[in-house]
Amino acid sequence: MKTKVRKATAGDAGIILGFIKELAQYEREPDAVEAVEADIRKQMESGHSPFECLIAEVDGAPAGFALYFFNYSTWKGKAGLYIEDIFVSPQKRGCGAGSALFRELGTIAGEKGCGRIEFAVLDWNQSAIDFYSRFGARPLDEWTVYRISGPALDDLKTASGSEKDRG
Amino acid sequence: MKTKVRKATAGDAGIILGFIKELAQYEREPDAVEAVEADIRKQMESGHSPFECLIAEVDGAPAGFALYFFNYSTWKGKAGLYIEDIFVSPQKRGCGAGSALFRELGTIAGEKGCGRIEFAVLDWNQSAIDFYSRFGARPLDEWTVYRISGPALDDLKTASGSEKDRG
Repeated sequence: MKTKVRKATAGDAGIILGFIKELAQYEREPDAVEAVEADIRKQMESGHSPFECLIAEVDGAPAGFALYFFNYSTWKGKAGLYIEDIFVSPQKRGCGAGSALFRELGTIAGEKGCGRIEFAVLDWNQSAIDFYSRFGARPLDEWTVYRISGPALDDLKTASGSEKDRG
Repeated sequence: MKTKVRKATAGDAGIILGFIKELAQYEREPDAVEAVEADIRKQMESGHSPFECLIAEVDGAPAGFALYFFNYSTWKGKAGLYIEDIFVSPQKRGCGAGSALFRELGTIAGEKGCGRIEFAVLDWNQSAIDFYSRFGARPLDEWTVYRISGPALDDLKTASGSEKDRG
């Protein structure tokens, strides 16, 4: 069994979308994926892709992926690596694909001079928590992420204007 | 009292660092800031700044800031706006600076076609939670952010190599 990690290119958009959908199903949100292959391909071809992606292969076949981008820490004054998704297909587990992806993310963080690697984990996903803990990941227990989306975001997008200068 | 929001430029690096330090103090981590003004200026001048920043002014004097970057949602297949820091100096509150910053972030999210705005809030910061809730922000209660930094990150940065290809 040969496990290998490579950088994804725009030609992998279909493979990436497949993993996104598989992960959404695993996260018990099978209908949450609105992304389409053509958009992912276009974003990756744009020259300023909003993300980068690694593909793990076992014996030459795609087994998992890690999709990430760079965030910024105002405390450290430098970029960090944020893993949006990391996933190995259940039937391809046990071949070291997850660890290989994670180590490659570490290498990239080193090359880019990142001060930290971060990612969000579902609280019930104990196997993921155990996996990340082996790499020294620590939960930011004091913090909760808040999100504005849907109609609330539409309201905020159009709320600016006359109120910007206040007497 | 006139409240105004403007885009920050590299010349604002000192003002930005001042707010970063004030916010760290407010978050009870006064010694956490390693960022230095020269690095922030250099990053903003680089042409590919890892962040963007807004400054709120009350009667022409800096009153607060919002520092943000763009992340990516694999479910939506599009970018999101992530607010790393949003802060108004305690003595400048009540002039609408926070709301003006937030509305401007909404406008930018609209211009960039973002599918969501996100930010992390300290669990004890009830006044912030109340503020964000007025804009329709909802906590992602099921998720916890994990971080790898310090020696654990150093280990991971150098863990790659011979193990990448596994027999």
